[in-house]
Amino acid sequence: MDYQQKSIAARKDHGGAIFTGLKAEPSDKESLSTYYSPGIAGPCLEIAKDKSKAFDLTIKKNTIAVISDGSAVLGLGNIGAEAALPVMEGKCMLLKHFGGVDGIPIVLDTQDTEEIIETIVRIAPTFGGINLEDISAPRCFEIEQRLGELLDIPVFHDDQHGTAICTTAALINALKVVKKDKETVKVVISGAGAGGIAIAKLVEQWGVKNIVMTDSKGVISCERDNLSSEKEQFCTHGDSQELADALIGADVFIGASKANILTPAMVKNMSKSPIVFALANPDPEMHPSLAEEAGVAVMATGRSDYPNQINNVLVFPGLFRGLLDHRVRNVTDEIKLSAAITLASLVENPTADCIIPDPFDAKVSPAMAASVLT
Amino acid sequence: MDYQQKSIAARKDHGGAIFTGLKAEPSDKESLSTYYSPGIAGPCLEIAKDKSKAFDLTIKKNTIAVISDGSAVLGLGNIGAEAALPVMEGKCMLLKHFGGVDGIPIVLDTQDTEEIIETIVRIAPTFGGINLEDISAPRCFEIEQRLGELLDIPVFHDDQHGTAICTTAALINALKVVKKDKETVKVVISGAGAGGIAIAKLVEQWGVKNIVMTDSKGVISCERDNLSSEKEQFCTHGDSQELADALIGADVFIGASKANILTPAMVKNMSKSPIVFALANPDPEMHPSLAEEAGVAVMATGRSDYPNQINNVLVFPGLFRGLLDHRVRNVTDEIKLSAAITLASLVENPTADCIIPDPFDAKVSPAMAASVLT
Repeated sequence: MDYQQKSIAARKDHGGAIFTGLKAEPSDKESLSTYYSPGIAGPCLEIAKDKSKAFDLTIKKNTIAVISDGSAVLGLGNIGAEAALPVMEGKCMLLKHFGGVDGIPIVLDTQDTEEIIETIVRIAPTFGGINLEDISAPRCFEIEQRLGELLDIPVFHDDQHGTAICTTAALINALKVVKKDKETVKVVISGAGAGGIAIAKLVEQWGVKNIVMTDSKGVISCERDNLSSEKEQFCTHGDSQELADALIGADVFIGASKANILTPAMVKNMSKSPIVFALANPDPEMHPSLAEEAGVAVMATGRSDYPNQINNVLVFPGLFRGLLDHRVRNVTDEIKLSAAITLASLVENPTADCIIPDPFDAKVSPAMAASVLT
Repeated sequence: MDYQQKSIAARKDHGGAIFTGLKAEPSDKESLSTYYSPGIAGPCLEIAKDKSKAFDLTIKKNTIAVISDGSAVLGLGNIGAEAALPVMEGKCMLLKHFGGVDGIPIVLDTQDTEEIIETIVRIAPTFGGINLEDISAPRCFEIEQRLGELLDIPVFHDDQHGTAICTTAALINALKVVKKDKETVKVVISGAGAGGIAIAKLVEQWGVKNIVMTDSKGVISCERDNLSSEKEQFCTHGDSQELADALIGADVFIGASKANILTPAMVKNMSKSPIVFALANPDPEMHPSLAEEAGVAVMATGRSDYPNQINNVLVFPGLFRGLLDHRVRNVTDEIKLSAAITLASLVENPTADCIIPDPFDAKVSPAMAASVLT
């Protein structure tokens, strides 16, 4: 039985992956009177006097909404709200297991930017933070930015920033392994969706100067019509080129795009000791078994069955733990870079087969939580 | 320490009353691969092919949203979203403990009827049902009705129908105790909010012919200007009267209004063997200690420290258990009456001190669940 079948079977037994646990059982008059009527008026009146008390006296203290409109789910595309729910539940499992954070999955019956924003604003009083998930680009950029301005709780789009933080951490260590300098390397990023754009922003913020972005039409040329503002930020001047052209002499390939688009021939045209992060899921831009014979010096993927798994679970549970514990209002660029540098630092002696911590390394979550205090 | 202080202290320790439990711990590669990537694509694809599979494979199977706008919380009034959250959490505790139903509290940062409706429609794909809570009249009537039409999951406003079902059950048994007939008794209902109106509708549906409703201005006269459609349905023709006038010769007083408005003098003007349900919380329309000397034959309140506690917890956990188990789409009038009659029938030999089951009676929840199959 493969994992998809196992996942279906496990969920059929249980009806989903999470449930509501009670901090006390209202099994006698005493507990019912304490947790419900008449005692319940006590916390209500405290919060009515001072809204911020909700952070002490309710689930808001430790609860994150994990919200999707089902428009860009895994590699499956726009499969809709209900079909996205298993992923949101899975995310909530990881939040709890790795970060001790209570996650509540919410899938939305709308894919309209304005409706998504106003809906999240209206349900926000319940939560201590918002994790946006699997919302397609470019809508995700505006939704996250506007919500960040409108709400007094942190808003984090994991497909962007979780991916960017892990990838930047891996790049920090991979460059150590091949002894190259961030200021001089050429980085080609394949894919200008939520993940690709966020990776470009964060590696640039870290100090990479030479970034070329490509999408399904090739290198993003500044001469193209109707460029989104995000693509415009990372466009390349000059004649239009293919991915293969861009990779000539490049030091790093980062793929957040689709399966098998990176060939051994392209890798052979890269500079000495090429670094390849093939992050497409479940099938990477280049299969790891091809990488070695193609001459790749450091290879990473999103897969758990090969070394160097770049996996968002390294980031979001611990990061939300820290955001909640310290009541951080905004996930600033400084926090994202701090998280990436902290994550990289957990690997003391990076090697080609170890540039990023293991997801089950118990040091990761506390370190991510602490990294919000930059 | 009183219960309000105890409630605050308990919530401070815990940060709210509920948490997210996991049906499996993603503590190794095998479980992570099953419950998250890559296995997670399995349930997603199943649901993408057939939306209704969300009822088997996700939390939708067993999860109810408990939603409030904070406009009419307990007897505390319009205290806002955050301050309503403890009540919603408490409701979720009761749903789980008594019905095995997972409840998720959601408080809304809007009190606009249209915005509430559209917000709930947009988050509905996550849930197997909606419990509306503490939303003020008359908005609650329209919100519940419109959502019932728009959604394919059951919508239940507990302040209306939970209250009405318990109260009707209590009335069924109280009339047996005093040997009076539903077709000839005069019932005066004090309070024309969500609870009072719903009680009037359900006792009328059961077969009570003579109902007089009063609100803060006295008997609701059909000659009044600007009557809401709900009040119009239960208005009285003729000169305007006070509550005291309406009670002369009445058999039953049902209060869903405010503390201490029923006096011993009024009770003395009622017919022989008067029945008084004083449901205002936490202080009833007449204190139980006054009832006996005033000549009340059957007395009920919402309080746990006197006999005959009319408490919605008798109804909503079991009812939602049944609605989910049988995938009932609408909570029809027939279901509500069936629930009331079923609840009454659990008291085999009603007496003045026992017209309604105890909240901790284990027979209640399964009986309520079964009552949805009318």
